[in-house]
Amino acid sequence: MGDTLPDFAAVVAAAGRLKGRVRRTPVMHADRFDERAGRRVVFKCENLQTGGAFKYRGALNALLTLPPDAGITRVATHSSGNHGTALALAARSLGLECTVVVPAGAARPKVAAIEAAGGRIVHCEAGTAAREAALAALLAREPAHVVHPYDDADVIAGQGTAALELLSEPMDFDTVIAPVGGGGLIGGTALVARGLLGECTVIAAEPAAADDAFRSFTSGRRVGVGATDTIADGLRASIGVRNFELLRRDVDEVVTVSEAEIVAAMRLVLEDLKLLIEPSSAVAVAAVLSRRATRLGEQVGVILSGGNIDLDQCPFLAGRA
Amino acid sequence: MGDTLPDFAAVVAAAGRLKGRVRRTPVMHADRFDERAGRRVVFKCENLQTGGAFKYRGALNALLTLPPDAGITRVATHSSGNHGTALALAARSLGLECTVVVPAGAARPKVAAIEAAGGRIVHCEAGTAAREAALAALLAREPAHVVHPYDDADVIAGQGTAALELLSEPMDFDTVIAPVGGGGLIGGTALVARGLLGECTVIAAEPAAADDAFRSFTSGRRVGVGATDTIADGLRASIGVRNFELLRRDVDEVVTVSEAEIVAAMRLVLEDLKLLIEPSSAVAVAAVLSRRATRLGEQVGVILSGGNIDLDQCPFLAGRA
Repeated sequence: MGDTLPDFAAVVAAAGRLKGRVRRTPVMHADRFDERAGRRVVFKCENLQTGGAFKYRGALNALLTLPPDAGITRVATHSSGNHGTALALAARSLGLECTVVVPAGAARPKVAAIEAAGGRIVHCEAGTAAREAALAALLAREPAHVVHPYDDADVIAGQGTAALELLSEPMDFDTVIAPVGGGGLIGGTALVARGLLGECTVIAAEPAAADDAFRSFTSGRRVGVGATDTIADGLRASIGVRNFELLRRDVDEVVTVSEAEIVAAMRLVLEDLKLLIEPSSAVAVAAVLSRRATRLGEQVGVILSGGNIDLDQCPFLAGRA
Repeated sequence: MGDTLPDFAAVVAAAGRLKGRVRRTPVMHADRFDERAGRRVVFKCENLQTGGAFKYRGALNALLTLPPDAGITRVATHSSGNHGTALALAARSLGLECTVVVPAGAARPKVAAIEAAGGRIVHCEAGTAAREAALAALLAREPAHVVHPYDDADVIAGQGTAALELLSEPMDFDTVIAPVGGGGLIGGTALVARGLLGECTVIAAEPAAADDAFRSFTSGRRVGVGATDTIADGLRASIGVRNFELLRRDVDEVVTVSEAEIVAAMRLVLEDLKLLIEPSSAVAVAAVLSRRATRLGEQVGVILSGGNIDLDQCPFLAGRA
């Protein structure tokens, strides 16, 4: 299942599978934010999802689609944090063991959360190549079922269920925006926008400091990103193969934002919506505020992907604990 | 109406009046917070209410109960912030003018919010006596209908609607906690706990640095508080006459917390629930975490009163904007 390209029906099936197992997170808005943005903007609060990020949807969907007779007892992945926590939580709920390869530079609370969820951690250098090499080395030592953080049809379908809930709200969405890193969230979101609404503009938001999706989208050829120090730690991965196919086919535009714009957006969401979001989520918010997209509409849905940050490290939240 | 002592029926009537006009704010929880607290704790998110605080409920209820034929075109109050914003918003929604007496030391964004809501501001010194004197002087110049921030039956009844929503959730509440300043929120909350649940323990949480409610409750005589610099800027007022009657009759315990406990609680709510709350809200959270209450149960409802803070002034959120 995980090897094919998912479709809208796969997202709907995932939603049925996940019902009662993932939180139907709230959808929020704030008049003051709308004034700043010059349009109606509603936020899907996946920062309030189990594990503090949308990742639980994809990880759990991937595990729930495993053949029951395959005898799988151990799962593994590489992750800068949220997918690792999500997979550990999903594995624990199903009685499986979980090991997570974590690259250097991962946010400290995310690593702690993986451990708190019962996941075993293996450290590696930063960057997609190093992550994959470390995972391969791990598997050579101890076989496990790998759940890729984004380049997997079941993971993408699971992530799409957030957009399915959002775009089912009673509002005439003309635009939906999600951040893009590896591309699991934007891939699932695009499937839903096309399958459910058809005419909705789909915008992927990316840090300019890790703009492989932008360059891939523009050039038509999937390019990777090396080690990057964007504050949006969840978006440092290179876009996946399946994810690039969906990006190319179903996404209308990729907008890049600066590090300063990301930090400013985090702060505005805290002020206006009283919500703590992580920098990766703020990338999508910053894309709205920048008005840089050529097809940004008037009724915008934004997926807030997660809320796991180290308060002591946050640029405007200096630690004095 | 505003001069009598409100009852549970008044809260139910207020809920009917406010339906569709105030937000039914979400009720949230976090497993991680429950682990810290050693019990189940759910939060009523009035920081997400219109105006960023529960105050909109009471202010709007007070204006909606005005006789339509009284010819009132101007309202006024004194407020350290949230009630002022709430009254200005409620007045604007009904086509009335609003003036707010604001004491020195009020949080900057709260003052800005009053102005943004169309309220006119008159400054005065800090402290209950100074606030009342300045309001009296204002009224001598220009007559207006005064909506007291807490010592008013319609205001108390309106504030109680937050607890009515919270305690109607499908959970076996054995404890409800709200902060106490002037006593509008705790008064309405206590009415609901008694009227709806009967057996529920009602705990008022107060900063030790402004412990007039604690001293009044303990001594049986209403005592005032002078100017205080507790970080919980919404709780600097002295408890009102009606509010003290309800406190004495329907509240089981008053718990005081330190300034450091307040700050730590703000941070934990941000980390665990991804929610920004103001220090006054954190007082109730700190009361739970302190385990200082003798009758703290296992199924606890906490009212998060508001979320309006100056991020640049917040102790662990130092400004580098």
